[in-house]
Amino acid sequence: MAGRKVLIVYAHQEPKSLNGSLKSIAVEELSKQGCSITVSDLYAMQFEPRATRNDIVGCLHNSEEFNYGVETWEAYKRGSLSSDLVEEQKKVQEADLLIFQFPLYWFSMPAIMKGWMDRVLVQGFAHEFPNCYDSGLLKDKLALFSFTTGGSKEMYAKGGISGDIRYLLWPMQHGIMHFCGVKVLAPHICFAPEYVSEEKRKEMLIAWAQRLKTLWNEEPINCSPEWYFK
Amino acid sequence: MAGRKVLIVYAHQEPKSLNGSLKSIAVEELSKQGCSITVSDLYAMQFEPRATRNDIVGCLHNSEEFNYGVETWEAYKRGSLSSDLVEEQKKVQEADLLIFQFPLYWFSMPAIMKGWMDRVLVQGFAHEFPNCYDSGLLKDKLALFSFTTGGSKEMYAKGGISGDIRYLLWPMQHGIMHFCGVKVLAPHICFAPEYVSEEKRKEMLIAWAQRLKTLWNEEPINCSPEWYFK
Repeated sequence: MAGRKVLIVYAHQEPKSLNGSLKSIAVEELSKQGCSITVSDLYAMQFEPRATRNDIVGCLHNSEEFNYGVETWEAYKRGSLSSDLVEEQKKVQEADLLIFQFPLYWFSMPAIMKGWMDRVLVQGFAHEFPNCYDSGLLKDKLALFSFTTGGSKEMYAKGGISGDIRYLLWPMQHGIMHFCGVKVLAPHICFAPEYVSEEKRKEMLIAWAQRLKTLWNEEPINCSPEWYFK
Repeated sequence: MAGRKVLIVYAHQEPKSLNGSLKSIAVEELSKQGCSITVSDLYAMQFEPRATRNDIVGCLHNSEEFNYGVETWEAYKRGSLSSDLVEEQKKVQEADLLIFQFPLYWFSMPAIMKGWMDRVLVQGFAHEFPNCYDSGLLKDKLALFSFTTGGSKEMYAKGGISGDIRYLLWPMQHGIMHFCGVKVLAPHICFAPEYVSEEKRKEMLIAWAQRLKTLWNEEPINCSPEWYFK
């Protein structure tokens, strides 16, 4: 949809990877629709994942006992968060849709992307009690988790050895995005691309491009325990 | 139990924090029992959470297209993983029990600890298909997740707004530890220490010390979907 803004937070080391291609296809397809796209290419940016005192410029609120949550909240209010965080927060603020593109590492996102969540979505900016979940500060935004797995679809089926893939989406979709008020579109999952044919991988790319064509018509999922654990 | 070896992987920036105290109590109590304790203090070590080409010393297996999983597996086999990873793997190899001590960040561990999982538990060392889950390469070891939360026990109850706390343990306990063959002891959770009295916080520390006294008698949990989502 022309005019819509999309932030793609992308975590893969290799541009030639399937994740790299999925990211490029999203840029291409959404640009064609007239959207404006920003990509945070975390590895290329050498994005810092560690939550430390360096995230606060100048003096601390309480230098006797460092509390990251309190310090970043206070720093947000007085405009003294480190510039890399401010930059990411601006991108989030402007976006209508956040796409997270990554390979699944240990039933979750890679540490570099978890660090983006830990450091960017600070209290005051993304949530501020009681403004969380449905009244989170990032409401009116959409998010979509797009990722590749090592395990097969069968391993991630209900009753499969790795359990229903939805089980592992709970912390990311409910615990992070829903907590900030963001509405979540159905995840986009490419199962075990390393173990399929080149042709099958091409089909995965085509399927993603196809989905993006009508993405703006999709309804968010119902982000309740029933969706995950039914 | 005299002679047992324990590795504590600890992720908090502030030694005076409750997490810092919980870590110190574990060192003290387990030392008293005659265990030998190693602590990986991730922030103090400035542990690198990003999974990059730097984790492989020398030439790559395939320099045309970088694949982190394949490259670290190959590097493990030929002994060319970076020294910080080898150091952590030695600690894991020697340990009978791994304790992970951290504040819950976004329904999961802080990025610096996720990076420890991503980088240390490489294929060949911790798992190697079909040696995963019950036959993972780290079987005969125990793990325990000990963490503090921001939200209250009520928020993390079944039917609470944040869902049963067990939902978010699935990726960490099943997806990581069980996958590597490690048996998991019941988690140790201190709910919302920031919002309780100093006296209540002291009780939390005493409860942890008490539990540690009989820890070696505990049976691992039954790491199946029923435990998490029943």
